[in-house]
Amino acid sequence: MTPNVVETSTAATGQLGRAEALATSLLSQRGEASGAAIARQLHDVLRKLAAEDRRKFQRFLATGFTPDATHLRAAAETYLSQPSAEAAASLAQAADPPRQELLRRMNMAPGGTSALVAMRKEIDGRLRAEPELRPLDSDLKHLFASWFNRGFLQLRRIDWRSPAVVLERLIAYEAVHEIHGWDDLRRRLAPDRRCFAFFHPALPDDPLIFVEVALVEGLAGAVQPLLVQEGDDDAARERASRADTAIFYSISNCQDGLRGISFGNFLIKQVVEELKAELPHLRQFSTLSPVPGFRRWLTRRAAANDDPAIAALARTETGPGWLEIARGDPSLKQTIMRVCASYLTRRASAEDRADPVARFHLGNGARLERINWLGNTAARGIAESFGIMVNYLYDVATIERNHEAFVNDGTVMRAAEVDALLAADPVSTPNQGSHAVTTP
Amino acid sequence: MTPNVVETSTAATGQLGRAEALATSLLSQRGEASGAAIARQLHDVLRKLAAEDRRKFQRFLATGFTPDATHLRAAAETYLSQPSAEAAASLAQAADPPRQELLRRMNMAPGGTSALVAMRKEIDGRLRAEPELRPLDSDLKHLFASWFNRGFLQLRRIDWRSPAVVLERLIAYEAVHEIHGWDDLRRRLAPDRRCFAFFHPALPDDPLIFVEVALVEGLAGAVQPLLVQEGDDDAARERASRADTAIFYSISNCQDGLRGISFGNFLIKQVVEELKAELPHLRQFSTLSPVPGFRRWLTRRAAANDDPAIAALARTETGPGWLEIARGDPSLKQTIMRVCASYLTRRASAEDRADPVARFHLGNGARLERINWLGNTAARGIAESFGIMVNYLYDVATIERNHEAFVNDGTVMRAAEVDALLAADPVSTPNQGSHAVTTP
Amino acid sequence: MTPNVVETSTAATGQLGRAEALATSLLSQRGEASGAAIARQLHDVLRKLAAEDRRKFQRFLATGFTPDATHLRAAAETYLSQPSAEAAASLAQAADPPRQELLRRMNMAPGGTSALVAMRKEIDGRLRAEPELRPLDSDLKHLFASWFNRGFLQLRRIDWRSPAVVLERLIAYEAVHEIHGWDDLRRRLAPDRRCFAFFHPALPDDPLIFVEVALVEGLAGAVQPLLVQEGDDDAARERASRADTAIFYSISNCQDGLRGISFGNFLIKQVVEELKAELPHLRQFSTLSPVPGFRRWLTRRAAANDDPAIAALARTETGPGWLEIARGDPSLKQTIMRVCASYLTRRASAEDRADPVARFHLGNGARLERINWLGNTAARGIAESFGIMVNYLYDVATIERNHEAFVNDGTVMRAAEVDALLAADPVSTPNQGSHAVTTP
Amino acid sequence: MTPNVVETSTAATGQLGRAEALATSLLSQRGEASGAAIARQLHDVLRKLAAEDRRKFQRFLATGFTPDATHLRAAAETYLSQPSAEAAASLAQAADPPRQELLRRMNMAPGGTSALVAMRKEIDGRLRAEPELRPLDSDLKHLFASWFNRGFLQLRRIDWRSPAVVLERLIAYEAVHEIHGWDDLRRRLAPDRRCFAFFHPALPDDPLIFVEVALVEGLAGAVQPLLVQEGDDDAARERASRADTAIFYSISNCQDGLRGISFGNFLIKQVVEELKAELPHLRQFSTLSPVPGFRRWLTRRAAANDDPAIAALARTETGPGWLEIARGDPSLKQTIMRVCASYLTRRASAEDRADPVARFHLGNGARLERINWLGNTAARGIAESFGIMVNYLYDVATIERNHEAFVNDGTVMRAAEVDALLAADPVSTPNQGSHAVTTP
Repeated sequence: MTPNVVETSTAATGQLGRAEALATSLLSQRGEASGAAIARQLHDVLRKLAAEDRRKFQRFLATGFTPDATHLRAAAETYLSQPSAEAAASLAQAADPPRQELLRRMNMAPGGTSALVAMRKEIDGRLRAEPELRPLDSDLKHLFASWFNRGFLQLRRIDWRSPAVVLERLIAYEAVHEIHGWDDLRRRLAPDRRCFAFFHPALPDDPLIFVEVALVEGLAGAVQPLLVQEGDDDAARERASRADTAIFYSISNCQDGLRGISFGNFLIKQVVEELKAELPHLRQFSTLSPVPGFRRWLTRRAAANDDPAIAALARTETGPGWLEIARGDPSLKQTIMRVCASYLTRRASAEDRADPVARFHLGNGARLERINWLGNTAARGIAESFGIMVNYLYDVATIERNHEAFVNDGTVMRAAEVDALLAADPVSTPNQGSHAVTTP
Repeated sequence: MTPNVVETSTAATGQLGRAEALATSLLSQRGEASGAAIARQLHDVLRKLAAEDRRKFQRFLATGFTPDATHLRAAAETYLSQPSAEAAASLAQAADPPRQELLRRMNMAPGGTSALVAMRKEIDGRLRAEPELRPLDSDLKHLFASWFNRGFLQLRRIDWRSPAVVLERLIAYEAVHEIHGWDDLRRRLAPDRRCFAFFHPALPDDPLIFVEVALVEGLAGAVQPLLVQEGDDDAARERASRADTAIFYSISNCQDGLRGISFGNFLIKQVVEELKAELPHLRQFSTLSPVPGFRRWLTRRAAANDDPAIAALARTETGPGWLEIARGDPSLKQTIMRVCASYLTRRASAEDRADPVARFHLGNGARLERINWLGNTAARGIAESFGIMVNYLYDVATIERNHEAFVNDGTVMRAAEVDALLAADPVSTPNQGSHAVTTP
Repeated sequence: MTPNVVETSTAATGQLGRAEALATSLLSQRGEASGAAIARQLHDVLRKLAAEDRRKFQRFLATGFTPDATHLRAAAETYLSQPSAEAAASLAQAADPPRQELLRRMNMAPGGTSALVAMRKEIDGRLRAEPELRPLDSDLKHLFASWFNRGFLQLRRIDWRSPAVVLERLIAYEAVHEIHGWDDLRRRLAPDRRCFAFFHPALPDDPLIFVEVALVEGLAGAVQPLLVQEGDDDAARERASRADTAIFYSISNCQDGLRGISFGNFLIKQVVEELKAELPHLRQFSTLSPVPGFRRWLTRRAAANDDPAIAALARTETGPGWLEIARGDPSLKQTIMRVCASYLTRRASAEDRADPVARFHLGNGARLERINWLGNTAARGIAESFGIMVNYLYDVATIERNHEAFVNDGTVMRAAEVDALLAADPVSTPNQGSHAVTTP
Repeated sequence: MTPNVVETSTAATGQLGRAEALATSLLSQRGEASGAAIARQLHDVLRKLAAEDRRKFQRFLATGFTPDATHLRAAAETYLSQPSAEAAASLAQAADPPRQELLRRMNMAPGGTSALVAMRKEIDGRLRAEPELRPLDSDLKHLFASWFNRGFLQLRRIDWRSPAVVLERLIAYEAVHEIHGWDDLRRRLAPDRRCFAFFHPALPDDPLIFVEVALVEGLAGAVQPLLVQEGDDDAARERASRADTAIFYSISNCQDGLRGISFGNFLIKQVVEELKAELPHLRQFSTLSPVPGFRRWLTRRAAANDDPAIAALARTETGPGWLEIARGDPSLKQTIMRVCASYLTRRASAEDRADPVARFHLGNGARLERINWLGNTAARGIAESFGIMVNYLYDVATIERNHEAFVNDGTVMRAAEVDALLAADPVSTPNQGSHAVTTP
């Protein structure tokens, strides 16, 4: 044992020890009077902690600050013997983990919310390996669900007049169709595009989720043309004035620390309202979405099924040359479109789950409007779904009905065009007929 | 029974019934998808509900939406048999009342937060008569404590450039020294005054708490001079430039619906920081505060005690002529000042509680700096405390120490000048000596 | 002569002398390098100058800082001998008074624009008595016409969220229908009212001109009902949602120092655009205006004319009891309405000028839409025009045509209803027929 | 001649003709009533005009709209015969070109100011070839000098929270040390940097001039280290907290259309005030400036002078290898530094003008503080001045004195260190001795 190591270790423990003492103090009576000051000191210490010590501090939070056992036991026994409303309330109070109050007090310092969101992001990847972190994760999630309530979110339009600090985060956070630097970003914010994000007042420069919208004529079926620069701002303004359709072609969650707290449904619906007010000539609002689970499903399906078409598709190599082959082979197109329609319209179950993107939009009340051949010719799109892209249409008049149908019995509301694809499908007999709707 | 009555009653039940159905729906799976829309409808219905129906709806909320009894019972039993961390967490989850989730969803609509705060204000006065409302009150308080966390509050300076909608609320909410209309308000916002308030982003025009500050030379001991207009804005600016002391002469909570959630401590401390940054020549920060409990205490004390001075004071009539008498009677002044010093410095107990204003400032770490004879000559001031006003000094260097002394053993830190008043006090032997501090 | 007096006088002269020296210095080469600093000092001195010294300083500005006589003479001679474009330009430059450059440099200090506007206001009333001030007035007006160009004005809506510092100026500046304090102001800003003002960036809290608008159903003919409070904000919002007509019932210039620089025409037209965008259901935009010159004209007319009706009207006593008489006398109404229609529609001339309010709106392209009996029952309205109020309608489609007709040959475009009043008019034969338009 | 050509030409003339008609109309009485609308139409037409037609329109403006010759002649004659103040004023009015009023009316439309600034930029390069454009240039400059008065400019700090639309203009406009894209820009806006710009309210997204400042310890003598990224934002904040010196290392005018209207002097002085308020620990404010005229002067000087050192320097090849030579040759450094000190401190004259950057800063009252060997190792810096960079120090206490000395007799105030370089200078005998000041 060398003195150096001891010193280093002591120093490290010193700061970790200080953080732990501050956390304990923050939850004490002293924390009631000087909470904001102690919380600020605690975050100052945490910011400078070495990674390993930060992990130790997180385990310290996760394993301590539990309800008082004697108290909780007594409350549980009282409730069991006399299960009144009061007894239930006392039990709830006794079971409420002090850790949540500690986290609330940590939030009192400037930057506290941001630091807590970052903490949850940091432990997120370690939950499997360190299951003792789960109570901390769960308490953070519970608090965030309360703090990031829809009522506290602010919708802001993002454009080229937005602060650079916000814009650079768009570049960083775009998860669907990568933004290649500032010039590419500028195209996404041209006058025939819209971008909206939710912000929380405690994170004023950091979007929670954002959506990118293209103003076009008719339903766009391919994403690459939407990402390309065409003409100058005047030309874009001109196109916007002719647009009758808003295409939501990318929606990205920004904060890993808020995983499990859903904003997308609210965002899409409010953006539809904003666009209607700004651009009364818009007639339809639709996504242009990927089908990320299609080929995974094909593979599983091929194993369980002796349909030779499925098996063949599941084996298809979609390397560099495939796109050319696909363009020249109408029967390949027909097969893939049919099978994909079947994939998207079948009644999902716990064992055979719906495509995640489909589940999100259908659960929000959108309708499966169109399946587009080679809608995304990027490598990832081909690898996931043979380049197929899907339009989910948000029609305010039918949202409630579509939603009910989907959550109640898994019925996928869809346009007649989708049913037509299914007509000759040998794979499955999807739920059809009455669910087909005619696009107005 | 007339048909008319039946119809009216049915109509009333109709809207109330609709509100109850919407609330139930809001907590269902449908509420997950369309929560914001349902919440908006619910608030629309509630806004138009007759008073009696609104009360019924509140009882509906307060008595329903309790945890599932079977589930809770099982969780309690599991915990008692195997008291692990997981079991405690499951128990906490089972005990968490669904009512809180419902209230969180009611918050999703525009204006939701404001409506919930108003609801708590409305039930506040009925809690004694209708104890069944208490679970609702308690859940609202729990949520508000989380939502109105210090980390989410915004400090704003209020001055004559503030929106009228905010200023009229200052006039309405001022609880200490009434503001008599717009001209009087303007004096409170003159260049030798400061006013700061906390706001929450969801209530952008509605202050939560505000404090009024006078910039003066030396410790101000009387409030009336601070409320009077002197000269024009230029004269006020001139006075501000000479000021060495900031006097916090009024602090008002604005939202009855947030009762029990404390902002004052945070506000005073942050305003001290703001003022230091803006006006580096300020040397001391002090309140000028009432002593609302003094005469009530005297009365109780007189009953329990045979000290003739106390008894005489307790019997004093402080009607219209008293002020003149008081001004002409030095021994009366001496007696009252001595007894008041004793009142403020004694070690309080559960049976003999500290003055509420003293408890607030001493608990925040302030020091009892000076007791002022006839500091408030308004009728209420005389009725409460023979016109005595007190300075509590906020000195950042000693705040922690003062706070610890007060909360640990009830020691009241104070200036030597206060001890001097106590010297000949026949009433009690307060805790003195080492606690007397010399004002620098 | 006492030393004291000498000293005082010297001190006074000293500050005036200092102001004059600073002004001279500001125009020198030194002023080019340190202009902003010198201008600031000059304004500091001027602010503290006694009234008499300030007047002397204004005369100093008005009589000095003239073009160099030798230089101007030479330029004039050159131009006369060789009248080229260059010679004209040189002459213009030589004639440009250095006073304007001095005033431009005085504008460089913070608050400079405001001080110069105030200076013009101050000399405005003295121009007759002190004609030597006229060059200063004329130079200020020339600069203001350039600085307060329409392109630099900002339209802002004023409502109850506006800063109090702006709102109190509305109360002070309202010139047509007095605002009686803050409660009255609030009514003017209710949800069924609109108020818009032009601001200049250099005077951010000080409106230049503002207009008050009522949102009503149908053309409002009487002003008193518009000034009365009816119901709460919800009721007002409800009325606004039903409104089809915007009535501009008050327009006030705020800055005497900007006399002669016209904003009203621009303001009305832009407010029409704003209202159309905000409230697409509005169908007509009209003023409700006084007829301030009607009785003055009657008096002049009675002297020159032997029409007994005119003579009788001109002699009418409109004291306290008149309103009751008027309400009970249909023939009086008929006569007055007829004569007033004649007054408003006759072709005006230099000797017999148009009513000033009529000239303003007709010159802007509005149409004389309706003449309202007892539209203003306040004393002033009765004294000026027997209580008559007039609607001038702004219809974008005909503005250009109406304007051309009025400025080219004095034709007053008007509704058929106005012509009907004229039918039996014995006083004059107004220009009629083709100008009568049918309100759609 | 083909019909096609005729048609094209007619069409072109058509739009040009329309623009000319609108301009004429704008200056007519109709323009008084509908000026804003006509101006808007005119700009709409101009925006779409082909380049050649736009040039024709500019010539149309430049050659027409002159004062009425008869009127001007009469006014000139009157003045010559009776040269009173009134006659001078009348003459000024008669000489005032109507073109200025037309340009003022063109400014009334949205975007008018921006379009006029762009117009002056466009004609700027053609003034030599088309001298008939000069009156237009001169009138625009006259108006801009009035409109862009210091009193109307707004200082704004620019940082990473500024809108992207502003930031991209910084990249485009930086004229001294090129900004290589967004990453490089970010370094210029790091926490140990400051950037301030003047804006005009009519051009809210378009800076007029901006300055880049580095916060450093001691006087920075070399520019390349200031342009390099070092560490992250926390490190930069740390450096800023230690800084005692603000180095103005780049100042760029942005608007070619505002050539001749000076903002730099005001900007530097106000930024000094801003920085003092924000960072009270800053002790000195200095530029780090190029010496763009040094080698040009050497060449002229060599021709006129038989000093062999000068001649040798003038012939020096400063290609790729020179920097290495320079670093290894102390006597070369000594010679160049000496001659450069002589260049910068000599009394300039009309024939032998001061270095333009020196003239700007010395004229503003700065002091020549230090001459830095190899302060700019970029090719341009070496080509212009053998890489020499100069610190001009802005010391508020001596600004007025330095300025007076420089403008009155060309004396260059400087630090003793600069005089030391001159000591052995064989080239010239600069004005020295009393002007040398000791840096505190």
